[in-house]
Amino acid sequence: MATMEEVTAFAPGSVSNLGPGFDILGLAVAGPGDTVTARRVPGSGVRIARVEGDGGRLPREAERNTAGVAAAATLRRAGVDAGVELVLRKGMPIGSGLGSSAASAAAAAYAVNLLLGSPLPVEALVEPCLEAEAAVSGRHADNVAPALLGGLVLVRSVDPVDVLRLPVPAGLTIAVVTPAFDLPTREARAALPKVVPLQAMVRNSANIAALVAACHTGDLALLRRAVVDDVVAPVRVALIPGCGAVIRAALDAGALGSTVSGAGPSVFALCDSEGIARAAAEAMRAAFREAGGLDSTAVVSPADAPGARRV
Amino acid sequence: MATMEEVTAFAPGSVSNLGPGFDILGLAVAGPGDTVTARRVPGSGVRIARVEGDGGRLPREAERNTAGVAAAATLRRAGVDAGVELVLRKGMPIGSGLGSSAASAAAAAYAVNLLLGSPLPVEALVEPCLEAEAAVSGRHADNVAPALLGGLVLVRSVDPVDVLRLPVPAGLTIAVVTPAFDLPTREARAALPKVVPLQAMVRNSANIAALVAACHTGDLALLRRAVVDDVVAPVRVALIPGCGAVIRAALDAGALGSTVSGAGPSVFALCDSEGIARAAAEAMRAAFREAGGLDSTAVVSPADAPGARRV
Repeated sequence: MATMEEVTAFAPGSVSNLGPGFDILGLAVAGPGDTVTARRVPGSGVRIARVEGDGGRLPREAERNTAGVAAAATLRRAGVDAGVELVLRKGMPIGSGLGSSAASAAAAAYAVNLLLGSPLPVEALVEPCLEAEAAVSGRHADNVAPALLGGLVLVRSVDPVDVLRLPVPAGLTIAVVTPAFDLPTREARAALPKVVPLQAMVRNSANIAALVAACHTGDLALLRRAVVDDVVAPVRVALIPGCGAVIRAALDAGALGSTVSGAGPSVFALCDSEGIARAAAEAMRAAFREAGGLDSTAVVSPADAPGARRV
Repeated sequence: MATMEEVTAFAPGSVSNLGPGFDILGLAVAGPGDTVTARRVPGSGVRIARVEGDGGRLPREAERNTAGVAAAATLRRAGVDAGVELVLRKGMPIGSGLGSSAASAAAAAYAVNLLLGSPLPVEALVEPCLEAEAAVSGRHADNVAPALLGGLVLVRSVDPVDVLRLPVPAGLTIAVVTPAFDLPTREARAALPKVVPLQAMVRNSANIAALVAACHTGDLALLRRAVVDDVVAPVRVALIPGCGAVIRAALDAGALGSTVSGAGPSVFALCDSEGIARAAAEAMRAAFREAGGLDSTAVVSPADAPGARRV
């Protein structure tokens, strides 16, 4: 429990929902992510010294920035009254459906815990990061849990926090394509149905149950049948230009499943090899260009990417 | 593929739903069940020669009895035009929430397939049995699939049929208590909500996903947290006298989880040992007597009981 004067942590972006896992399933993505440097300062409380890479879009007040909220909540949870100054470096687009706010929160919570000598296990950082998410987009852990823990994470409950890592079938790879299109998370969430038919609940429950079974058994044919969402995805597909064509392009390229990542506008494709994921990413970018008139960037990542860590 | 002149098959009762698995999860129960003798007769089509043990409550017309419907659908699926006569012996109560209609269908389908020399794998009998269930209570396979396959079965889809066996944690035992109370399945289904809040879908999906993970990892503490249903169970608990007290008695006796079996009025308790299951069964019977004024019978079964078979 050696405390430090200054430490830097990284947390990755993440794909949430993954089809039937609305608000409960998320996957860490290797590549894009946020970095937070936490430094001891005199006094008490959290201050954000600087934010880089956000084009000036994020609030600098600690209580309105997920890094700041998560840092303060981590101090509280550790029972430490200290002064902490943060520098947040955004390494991923904001409002992309890749868990940008969660990556900031996870990096900050992880850095502050390190700064204190790691009094908390990483699982205990989910709750402080949930507080941060609740401050900007709702109390859901499907991005913060994989951003902290890495890999594929199921969130059974947020009250109390109950998260578990799921096994990832060998070779499973994810392609994520992010179009140059602004779709605020709040707007995407506002478009969601308030109620769903009982039969939709039954189908969604069946598919997430089968997806979990497929992860445990490595049955990729079952995984392909289970990565289905007819409740949340249709609403979001309609908000993103060309999205239907992008999903079809991914499936035509051999993806096991494809739909909107989180609140969008990013679209993911789960694939059984890196080669197919790379082909799917190119096909999806082409479809965004042709059907949506949108430029895009792509990331290809193993499905068992690591979570938050010291850098 | 040796055909026979006469054959008898048994199929067990089953507990469906099991908390968050409404319409998609079911478990075969050792003990109660139905027996069907199928016999070749001249001509074509299915006839029910006799039904025993039903107190005269079941229809004798083949097209209105699940055994008859399943038998005819099995002939069709096998592509055989034959005359078949059935004798159905009910070995379990009707309308109890233990999959009585499904046990009749499964025993009949299994017997007819044997009679034809087993042209169909047992998984292919789910569809004929689904047709039978659809004729009396709705197109759901959460009783017919375990009645055929045994053990714990997840129904990912009924259109097309997509069912899978889940692993059963060692020692897992189920107690089922059936009160002397008439609750027709149609009435129990009519009481269901037509729509549910999106957040209820999220919670239900999270719990069934965690339940599947718990079965794969043998994590009984997780199983305990996941056997939760706040959508369908509350409606059904309210229809059964003393049901709330019965569930509390099961949990107080150490059950991992307890709620209504299928459409009720039976109540199940999942337990981590036979000893606890026996204690839970007694406590539940006492609670039905005291809080509901109802006599009851109890069955204690391993959670990996066998499915349909020749007898």
